[in-house]
Amino acid sequence: MSTATALQQDDATAQIRALAEAARAASHELALADTDAKNNALTAAAAAVRAAEAELLEANAKDVAFGQEKNLSHAMIDRLKLDPARIEAMASGLEAVAALPDPVGEVMASWERPNGLRIERVRVPLGVIGVIYESRPNVTADAGGLCLKAGNASILRGGSESLHSSGVITECLQRGLEDAGLPRASIQMVPTRDRAAVGAMLARADLIDVIVPRGGKSLIERVMNEARMPVFAHLEGLCHVYVDAGADPEKARAIAFNAKMRRTGICGAAETLLVDRQADPAVLRAILSDLAKEGCELRGDDDVRALDPRVGTATEDDWYTEYLDTILSVRIVDGVEAAIDHINHYGSHHTDSIVTEDPDAARKFLAEVDSAIVMHNASTQFADGGEFGMGAEIGISTGRMHARGPVGTEQLTSFKYVVRGDGQIRP
Amino acid sequence: MSTATALQQDDATAQIRALAEAARAASHELALADTDAKNNALTAAAAAVRAAEAELLEANAKDVAFGQEKNLSHAMIDRLKLDPARIEAMASGLEAVAALPDPVGEVMASWERPNGLRIERVRVPLGVIGVIYESRPNVTADAGGLCLKAGNASILRGGSESLHSSGVITECLQRGLEDAGLPRASIQMVPTRDRAAVGAMLARADLIDVIVPRGGKSLIERVMNEARMPVFAHLEGLCHVYVDAGADPEKARAIAFNAKMRRTGICGAAETLLVDRQADPAVLRAILSDLAKEGCELRGDDDVRALDPRVGTATEDDWYTEYLDTILSVRIVDGVEAAIDHINHYGSHHTDSIVTEDPDAARKFLAEVDSAIVMHNASTQFADGGEFGMGAEIGISTGRMHARGPVGTEQLTSFKYVVRGDGQIRP
Repeated sequence: MSTATALQQDDATAQIRALAEAARAASHELALADTDAKNNALTAAAAAVRAAEAELLEANAKDVAFGQEKNLSHAMIDRLKLDPARIEAMASGLEAVAALPDPVGEVMASWERPNGLRIERVRVPLGVIGVIYESRPNVTADAGGLCLKAGNASILRGGSESLHSSGVITECLQRGLEDAGLPRASIQMVPTRDRAAVGAMLARADLIDVIVPRGGKSLIERVMNEARMPVFAHLEGLCHVYVDAGADPEKARAIAFNAKMRRTGICGAAETLLVDRQADPAVLRAILSDLAKEGCELRGDDDVRALDPRVGTATEDDWYTEYLDTILSVRIVDGVEAAIDHINHYGSHHTDSIVTEDPDAARKFLAEVDSAIVMHNASTQFADGGEFGMGAEIGISTGRMHARGPVGTEQLTSFKYVVRGDGQIRP
Repeated sequence: MSTATALQQDDATAQIRALAEAARAASHELALADTDAKNNALTAAAAAVRAAEAELLEANAKDVAFGQEKNLSHAMIDRLKLDPARIEAMASGLEAVAALPDPVGEVMASWERPNGLRIERVRVPLGVIGVIYESRPNVTADAGGLCLKAGNASILRGGSESLHSSGVITECLQRGLEDAGLPRASIQMVPTRDRAAVGAMLARADLIDVIVPRGGKSLIERVMNEARMPVFAHLEGLCHVYVDAGADPEKARAIAFNAKMRRTGICGAAETLLVDRQADPAVLRAILSDLAKEGCELRGDDDVRALDPRVGTATEDDWYTEYLDTILSVRIVDGVEAAIDHINHYGSHHTDSIVTEDPDAARKFLAEVDSAIVMHNASTQFADGGEFGMGAEIGISTGRMHARGPVGTEQLTSFKYVVRGDGQIRP
């Protein structure tokens, strides 16, 4: 490490420690905050975001100019850009989080012991949540709001191109907190472009309880490798649709098309279509034709290519690839068992769906596919906290610990046991 | 690292990888095993343990001799030693785990969406669990059995002095697995005294999903620092009893005495007694007298010492100390708020109890003490999976992620979402 880099690392370490200590202190107050106070903070923050429209657009213009200087891709600039509609969406998003039920204090289970002790399992906040994301200013409001609702303090580290926009948004969130009598440090942003800040965050397992990364694969990979605390994330959404011999042809067509094409850039988009060798070839032909007509590139094994000349050759690598684009790999498999084997081997344990009217095949698939979300006769694009009825999500986790699938307010909580007695002592 | 050490590390790495890969493969089969198969394996293992009594006593004699050569403490030799009663306790422990409900497949929640999608959250096993413990042969049977019941493969690494005993027990468990048609690799032991094996286990976050350490503070500390995967553990059980001004004097006496003296070496034993300054001094005098009479060493602040000449001086360090012995630190505090502050500052977030008839004080204490288990009018010695009605526990966790409090079969599971539709596509 050069001396300059080492100094930078020292600065980042000190800065993150100060933020995280303030977050920890705030989290103790937040854990005891009542629902009204948190909701008041969220609605006041929404009002502040609306009132700051002009300031936000100005800050965002600086960010966009910086992003263009840095030659960000068109897609990245698009995600960075704010306009009045997007600002309104952030504000109403905060109000929607205010309208969600408060998970904190919920009695998850309760029972009585033969000796009369009454035991309750009660939801409490997790503590301090670090969120690391790309240059998408709206994530600042979404993530800060969701963490707050679950009683957690958050430390937000957005992409360096969104620094000005995120700064204004954080100020709005903190004004909301202040209005509601809650500590400003309940939501903090890392106010620097210094990349060393990310490493400094990932090292503070003593002060940051969990990290939620949002962004591309390289960011997630770095966070998963370096974080000393638990991480709620998915590295990839390599989702599959399996069309069984017992599939209803119309459902198969509709689901395969929707799972791939509705939006190709989201983690719940299908990347591989598996089709039962016993299925009527007309079904697969129709699916391939639907997709090709809409400009989807198809890559298949020899059996698939024999059905449609528009299908290119899939290599071994294709089965491992999350395209996030209008490309689909297609493979013929020997029944549901082979489909399960393919998915468990090549997949990313995110979301996989079987299309069939055969209850035995469905049962087998749902039981044996080892993914956070398994579906029967539904599009993988439903893999989303909102679609699950959770109201909002901070991401989707493919880990097996604590949170799996969509991460909403409930998944951002822990719990404690409350035991009530009348003088019981243990014999 | 010397060349010899480096070679040893390479050996350990290769050995753990082989064990963990076999465990991973077994875990996939186990996840789909039905309840009967798992229960048959457990009861067959119990029978095998009983049948192996002579062999076990012989192996254990070797271990005890080795332990004596190594000058293990009397307490450690006692924990290492097996006799017919302890062997029977292991066997009936396995049968008791067989009698527990199977958590796998349990529908934890289910709901329907407006579009007709039915969503279930279903328990599934965690995967592969590594258990690292001291030379207590019975943990081999207890931990292996509990992991199996929850559908998890386990890798057991007991203390080096218990190698022969644990080897025979593992063989019995594997015979039970074989009898039930389940893979032997569902329960494996690290068959070596090589200490490098522990480091090799802690590094394999890709193959071992969670580590459960059981033992003294230095072992837990090492595991928590080095493990790259989640750890279910508590570093200490620095438990408090707070006697409020509103306490019933008889309950206070009984609970304070039981919380300290029933068993002093368990994690739920009280280490510090806090007493409200407004409480009748006669109550504290009676408590101190009860304890002193039974040989408990008392260390108090000046106010406490003024009440009883048998009380020694508590230093700042005492408030941080888990004695695990017949020693108690005692402090007078200014009401429930000061008690909460003391506990959250000095405690270990394990188990803390308030004695009071005042519902407001109780409510405040239960809400604000940030511990895995908070109690009202009950002895901290109830901090135990069996006492909670969980049947058995592999330990108690003070972490906030996934498992908090007693870790039983339920806490050794993850979950997945099962979504059932009728052809739904996302608009």
